[in-house]
Amino acid sequence: MKRRHSRSSDGSSGISSGSVSVASSVCDGNQNDTSVSMTSETQLPKEETLRLRNEHLGSLTALYFRENPLKIIRAERQYMYDEEGNQYLDCINNVAHVGHCHPAVSEAAYQQMTQLYTNSRYLHDNLSTYVKRITQLFPDPLTVCFLCNSGSEANDLALRLARAHTGGSEVITLFGAYHGHIQSTIDISPYKWKNDMADKPKYVHVAPNPDMYRGPHANSASPGRDYALEVKKIIDTIKLDGKQLSAFIMESLQSCAGQVLPPPGYMTEAFRYVREAGGVCIADEVQVGFGRVGSHYWGFETQDVIPDIVTIGKPMGNGHPIAGVITTKAIADSLGNIVSSYFNTYGGNPVSCAIGHAVLDVIEDEQLKKNAQEVGEYAVKELQKLELKHKIIGDVRGMGLFVGIEIVKNRSTREPGTAVANEIHRRMKNRRIIISVDGAFDNVLKMKPPMCFSRSNVDHVVWSLDEVMSEIATSDVIKPLKPSTGTSHLEEVNVSHLSAATN
Amino acid sequence: MKRRHSRSSDGSSGISSGSVSVASSVCDGNQNDTSVSMTSETQLPKEETLRLRNEHLGSLTALYFRENPLKIIRAERQYMYDEEGNQYLDCINNVAHVGHCHPAVSEAAYQQMTQLYTNSRYLHDNLSTYVKRITQLFPDPLTVCFLCNSGSEANDLALRLARAHTGGSEVITLFGAYHGHIQSTIDISPYKWKNDMADKPKYVHVAPNPDMYRGPHANSASPGRDYALEVKKIIDTIKLDGKQLSAFIMESLQSCAGQVLPPPGYMTEAFRYVREAGGVCIADEVQVGFGRVGSHYWGFETQDVIPDIVTIGKPMGNGHPIAGVITTKAIADSLGNIVSSYFNTYGGNPVSCAIGHAVLDVIEDEQLKKNAQEVGEYAVKELQKLELKHKIIGDVRGMGLFVGIEIVKNRSTREPGTAVANEIHRRMKNRRIIISVDGAFDNVLKMKPPMCFSRSNVDHVVWSLDEVMSEIATSDVIKPLKPSTGTSHLEEVNVSHLSAATN
Repeated sequence: MKRRHSRSSDGSSGISSGSVSVASSVCDGNQNDTSVSMTSETQLPKEETLRLRNEHLGSLTALYFRENPLKIIRAERQYMYDEEGNQYLDCINNVAHVGHCHPAVSEAAYQQMTQLYTNSRYLHDNLSTYVKRITQLFPDPLTVCFLCNSGSEANDLALRLARAHTGGSEVITLFGAYHGHIQSTIDISPYKWKNDMADKPKYVHVAPNPDMYRGPHANSASPGRDYALEVKKIIDTIKLDGKQLSAFIMESLQSCAGQVLPPPGYMTEAFRYVREAGGVCIADEVQVGFGRVGSHYWGFETQDVIPDIVTIGKPMGNGHPIAGVITTKAIADSLGNIVSSYFNTYGGNPVSCAIGHAVLDVIEDEQLKKNAQEVGEYAVKELQKLELKHKIIGDVRGMGLFVGIEIVKNRSTREPGTAVANEIHRRMKNRRIIISVDGAFDNVLKMKPPMCFSRSNVDHVVWSLDEVMSEIATSDVIKPLKPSTGTSHLEEVNVSHLSAATN
Repeated sequence: MKRRHSRSSDGSSGISSGSVSVASSVCDGNQNDTSVSMTSETQLPKEETLRLRNEHLGSLTALYFRENPLKIIRAERQYMYDEEGNQYLDCINNVAHVGHCHPAVSEAAYQQMTQLYTNSRYLHDNLSTYVKRITQLFPDPLTVCFLCNSGSEANDLALRLARAHTGGSEVITLFGAYHGHIQSTIDISPYKWKNDMADKPKYVHVAPNPDMYRGPHANSASPGRDYALEVKKIIDTIKLDGKQLSAFIMESLQSCAGQVLPPPGYMTEAFRYVREAGGVCIADEVQVGFGRVGSHYWGFETQDVIPDIVTIGKPMGNGHPIAGVITTKAIADSLGNIVSSYFNTYGGNPVSCAIGHAVLDVIEDEQLKKNAQEVGEYAVKELQKLELKHKIIGDVRGMGLFVGIEIVKNRSTREPGTAVANEIHRRMKNRRIIISVDGAFDNVLKMKPPMCFSRSNVDHVVWSLDEVMSEIATSDVIKPLKPSTGTSHLEEVNVSHLSAATN
């Protein structure tokens, strides 16, 4: 399998024994062939990997398990392997959508990289066929797309399209929302606001997220209607201020907010209010798209609506940076109101499009949407059994392979069990299962694994959670706040670990 | 060479005769093996490629030669090939830095894609060694970096770092500047403003770009000093308004503005004023970095300054989306003033870092910086000879493989020769040489080719330009505005072609 190409001095290419070495000056580890595991002598000692990172990578760069970070050197399907060959079950990487390092994707990338890896200013079949194929996965009138590199770039463009089309300035977003890491998307991501509402720009308005477990209308008989009315209230305020609404943006299912599934009717009603006010509706499918919800290809379809703009990303390239904005021809054309042209150096290049095609092929060939539905339903059912046993589980919710387990101190008060959730996370890691903790109160265990996740993987997770939760119930992690008040008002101690977010 | 991997239904990977086809539903052209040219039967007819693109890709998406676009299906080194096998000399793709489809880069990408393609939340040697290696290419105290996907994301982060570090809000940018295609970078890119200064946000201030051919101080005895004083004037205004300067951002050599090289001393003096005002200095090396200027690795080094923040991109991945921000530890740490963490889904993943390493390897192994210096000097010398012959050439300027030829109607008045420049561009395409036209007046022929560009390529370009300019001089493209006024006041007619920008 191992081939090393180099170029002779006259520039012709050929196969040689390998004058080209990758990372040759410091490390030539992972560029060896595809044998099952790396030998330790080709790897830097883990402490050195960490030291170099600490010395030269921005200190704010997120790291899982900061106290004892994992060094992962190989991954395949839903499994990752550390430098000692230990296998970890990956329950959270929604980017490795069709499975880590799927050979069909790597091969498509490589074949195209040897042919052409340039920009979309030239005609290319990969681009033309991909934009046809991806738009055909959306209902009419969503027939046009733009391609870019990341969900952040996609949401940025979506916001600009909305402004160009409506002439409006105001944006409504949801509490807990995460839409990207660049300035314009941080603006509309309460999840990223370090100082909470003090970081909210004036043009941004935050509606309560349609949380059916906690939040103002969690106990309503019509939570969809009532949460949508919150959007209408904001629209009324915007009008009173003499401003024009540009966009209402929401993740079709909220991820970083803690796996929040909107109640039936929410998007239909909210979209109606937004459109009546002249705004456009943006569905952010960056985290949940491409069949993850099981029953449909896109999350918004579960609410029986058609957005005006949809943004897609992460799973689209199975790790490769590709993202897109799908919209109507009219909205796409209106971009001309604010700029003369759209160009993205990498967006729509032949390699990214080849990878995009390969990902869609695998989703179809391996029936991953169907797998997500079946395994997801099984996971929720099994976790609900666990809920009967462990009182720290306040709620189990999910749709396809997008599942949340809300940890609480007290089922009646629903007080978030932040420290316990993080302790579960840590202990699951020790059992070589990677889940994450997220949400406004950092108390929701999240699962959004590669789509090839199996029933036996679910069994493994549920069985391990059962054990970990049993351990914790008898450990000093949970201590009664007041002696002999029973199981309510649990206090959490001895938990210093802070989990990283998993957007 | 051709291999097709597929996965059996149980998910194990292996090599098969190929159930996995890329773009299988519509096209399986470019995924064939690496033979010299595609056969036409594996390609869509060009009209169909164009039709699908027009139907499903946002209409604002830039396309070269809109009237008769090129379909490029393969490229190698500085050469591109259309669907009929015609070879084009690529004089403009600074992204394909070490040559289109360099096998060392494709191979490094592939080898790593088969191992691990996940995010920077886990430790990985590729990331640790790459951040060490890339920061070592910068002078102290620039020892820390952040990784992301595009120059736009890099400049966005640079602006946020500046704000976090200084507490300031105001940004000074240069006339003609291009820093990216997302909202925050369009804000500081006069090049992208559809309505010119009407599109300028209040927090942005535009200084004259330090153009030694046209502009307020082009004829000054001390243009560096005088242009820097323009920056100081703006700083004084900001202070008078009671505002705080955040950043001064400039491309070390301006590209979209028309290959503008700052005069000696400019950056030194401008940086001094900025720092005295508590601002930070950002050098955008997205277009010109990685040895393109020949004499140095980075453009700012030719001005003998050390910026506070440097952004890098395009050439960094030779086509693959990778970019970065290099800065001081103090500035990197200050990001914590505004956000809790930095995370970028793809930034710093092991594949991008493997590619980044491979690009650096090739630059070193093939001595491309030296080549840029030698071939660039030769190009400027030969073009200056052409200048003696053709009066439509107002200026020839360059540094390494970053060269501009300013086309004018009149050498005395320096009136821009926009239509003639575009006609040259079109005729060069017909001779299968791809150059571009850019600048505030769309009259500067630009060259920024892959770094393996050779002396014979220069000869080919110069000889062709000579012929094209001679043709144009005797054609009806240039007609005297008034009969018998000689060569001055040329009027341009019969040119309907509009070139695309080449950021």
